[in-house]
Amino acid sequence: MIDKVIAHIDANKDANLVRLNDLLRIPSISTDPERKADVRKSAEWVHGVFKNCGIQSEIVETPWHPSVLADTGPVDGDGPTVLIYGHFDVQPTGEESLWDSPAFEPTIRDGKLFARGSADDKGQVFAHMLAAESWMKAAGKPPIRVKFLIEGEEEVSSPNLEKVLRDNKDKLACDFVALSDTPKFDANTPAITFGTKGLVYKEIVVTGPKQNLHSGSYGGTLANPGNALAVIIASLRDSDNRVTIPGFYDNVKPLTQDEQDKLNELPFDEEAYLAGMGAPALDGEIGFRTLERRWARPTLDVNGLFGGFVGEGASTVIPARVFAKVSMRLVPDQDYKLISKLFDDAVRAACPAGVRLEIVDHGSCAPYVAPTESDGMTAAASAAEAGFGKRPYFIREGGTLPILPLFRDVLGADSLMLGFCMPDCNAHGPNEYLDVSDFHNGTKTAAYLLHYLART
Amino acid sequence: MIDKVIAHIDANKDANLVRLNDLLRIPSISTDPERKADVRKSAEWVHGVFKNCGIQSEIVETPWHPSVLADTGPVDGDGPTVLIYGHFDVQPTGEESLWDSPAFEPTIRDGKLFARGSADDKGQVFAHMLAAESWMKAAGKPPIRVKFLIEGEEEVSSPNLEKVLRDNKDKLACDFVALSDTPKFDANTPAITFGTKGLVYKEIVVTGPKQNLHSGSYGGTLANPGNALAVIIASLRDSDNRVTIPGFYDNVKPLTQDEQDKLNELPFDEEAYLAGMGAPALDGEIGFRTLERRWARPTLDVNGLFGGFVGEGASTVIPARVFAKVSMRLVPDQDYKLISKLFDDAVRAACPAGVRLEIVDHGSCAPYVAPTESDGMTAAASAAEAGFGKRPYFIREGGTLPILPLFRDVLGADSLMLGFCMPDCNAHGPNEYLDVSDFHNGTKTAAYLLHYLART
Repeated sequence: MIDKVIAHIDANKDANLVRLNDLLRIPSISTDPERKADVRKSAEWVHGVFKNCGIQSEIVETPWHPSVLADTGPVDGDGPTVLIYGHFDVQPTGEESLWDSPAFEPTIRDGKLFARGSADDKGQVFAHMLAAESWMKAAGKPPIRVKFLIEGEEEVSSPNLEKVLRDNKDKLACDFVALSDTPKFDANTPAITFGTKGLVYKEIVVTGPKQNLHSGSYGGTLANPGNALAVIIASLRDSDNRVTIPGFYDNVKPLTQDEQDKLNELPFDEEAYLAGMGAPALDGEIGFRTLERRWARPTLDVNGLFGGFVGEGASTVIPARVFAKVSMRLVPDQDYKLISKLFDDAVRAACPAGVRLEIVDHGSCAPYVAPTESDGMTAAASAAEAGFGKRPYFIREGGTLPILPLFRDVLGADSLMLGFCMPDCNAHGPNEYLDVSDFHNGTKTAAYLLHYLART
Repeated sequence: MIDKVIAHIDANKDANLVRLNDLLRIPSISTDPERKADVRKSAEWVHGVFKNCGIQSEIVETPWHPSVLADTGPVDGDGPTVLIYGHFDVQPTGEESLWDSPAFEPTIRDGKLFARGSADDKGQVFAHMLAAESWMKAAGKPPIRVKFLIEGEEEVSSPNLEKVLRDNKDKLACDFVALSDTPKFDANTPAITFGTKGLVYKEIVVTGPKQNLHSGSYGGTLANPGNALAVIIASLRDSDNRVTIPGFYDNVKPLTQDEQDKLNELPFDEEAYLAGMGAPALDGEIGFRTLERRWARPTLDVNGLFGGFVGEGASTVIPARVFAKVSMRLVPDQDYKLISKLFDDAVRAACPAGVRLEIVDHGSCAPYVAPTESDGMTAAASAAEAGFGKRPYFIREGGTLPILPLFRDVLGADSLMLGFCMPDCNAHGPNEYLDVSDFHNGTKTAAYLLHYLART
């Protein structure tokens, strides 16, 4: 049957690409209050795809953005049930002038489909939807029961997903979760990701005078919120790029020799990686190699800064209000709730006198590591090999998927992360893209996944 | 004759206010390339006022914004010649939502005229123009020769004014310069300002990757420009709020006992000053009192910060480019060219590895102190007392007037600074205002100034 399904996918290549473009045109930026209706529109679009191919589907409301739950229903045989997870919300575009083509007008250049959400995650989750649809159309039913949970709040740290999961725990019961929200290892090699970092995202707001003041008339007589913010941020890391928050590293375990060995075996090209970033140099915490820092060491980064006069030229003001967005990526055994508190304590301790300080929480979640020896991992590796023509690497990831620890906790299921997009796909930045061939190979991989899971 | 002139000013109070509003409606923001035509429009408006009352006037071109030069011509008697200086360009509005009425729609509330430029400097320079006009109309000629130099680049550090001065040195020859671009001492007391600070204004630009990157995928493997910028800024001052740039204080002289005594005599209300700023506390360089820090100690302030994600909520990016606008106010004997170099050296030394650093100059100028014992100062004090009904204080000022050292250098003339606006007039911030009564009293003071200078 898998051959008929693959043939169906091949026969509908162009039509599937056109349909993906329809989804990518919806500016479903979940962090932007003015885009709320567009996030819903994406939910309805996804819901429609399921309904039109005979998969039962419903839109589940939350206080913010809805999720879509779908289910092929029971099938013959005693194969496992898989829950496909993904998200239809996207990151903000950032400065639009940096995009070579508009973020929400999908454009193909050199075999790459450029659009916000092409890789993260609309293109990847739609590949799984197409795989299930192809099984329905070419074979009547998939070989195992397939469920979907596709949400609209992933890019805002999934504040309502735990409730959706718990409220629908029975409906979502499964043996494995599968998702594609991570990249391949490199252009030629797919990857199965088995670990992700946790996240604590904060906003430090420093205020002083009631409004911007003339820096000549008032300078030297009051604390400057801009200088104070810099002092706070600078205090959070030392010159070795180690985080200085007391207790930050207490639960961070070094990699085992086996983990070190597997990391060393990966053919990681530092030069190519650096060129892809376009940064002057590789840099980071002293004493660790690049891949270890990237996947297995916690980090603290400024994500944004704003305050005072930021126009052309000069204006001599003391800013009334400045803020910085600062986030930390956490590794297994770090407790994100504890780290959140330690961060707040350290920021308060570092804040100079004479200003007001506010710390805003913008979401947090735990890190995750899955066992690499399981029937699911074996099936996922076979599927990726069948879809991309090359055996995948098992890797970790510096990004965060808030849902993974929740799935384990609520559903008792570990997650299979199959990456279809390129590592330099510009997720979260300008010119996000998905290779058209990766989209098709990903769709086939997703179809093969159901095939191989049925045989476990 | 002075009585007829004052009667003329009183008789035209309302008309003069209406005319000021016309000038204030022109958004002549010199730092904004899109407002270039509006700066010129202000020049033409000023030029028209002179022409219409028989004062010879010309618009002098520069590579950026023009200046207006005017001259009443020789008069009978052997009185001094005074050059009135001012500017018709204004600061940017900043965040418009913070204004209670639009910045360029002059609005009177509680006897205050709110508009960008009302105090700094259109309202104050127009008072001098009206004084000269009133002398022309009520007495045929002023009692001394009056010249005007009114420029359009004061808020961008007057890059072309030195050339205008040198090119027109003979035309502008004078015994004293008089200007009103400084405030009164308090609501009831006018002030003669005899010292201003110098300025060095810089922009620190830190760049890293070619574009904003996903902080999960790349975090820990490259230097973050936002963290690096914070480290640089934090390094420039210590926890005692002293500037740490090597050599910064080398030429800063402590106040003499006499200067200390005069400062102590001023009835400065710290509580009211703090309430006016709306800051949590007074703060600044350790070991100096508030007025000394404000007027006689050099400062270093962040004026603006920008970079990365600054929208609502959270976006996990490593910013590709961040910048900070940072300026220093200098006191007499500090060499602004040397300080500019020392700043650059310190910033370069403080910049962490792994990022690119650029330092942009946004103008600089020397500090200034005038002798307080002179015929001009005596006349200015008498004029302020006649105009406002109270003897003025002699004070220093934390702001910068780039033109003052230049006048002394090129024309050999010291400056008389008569303040008509309130100390909390919100120059450079939202809701800038000029008391309507101060505008009228300032106009009379400017008329009296010519009267008393004629009698020296």
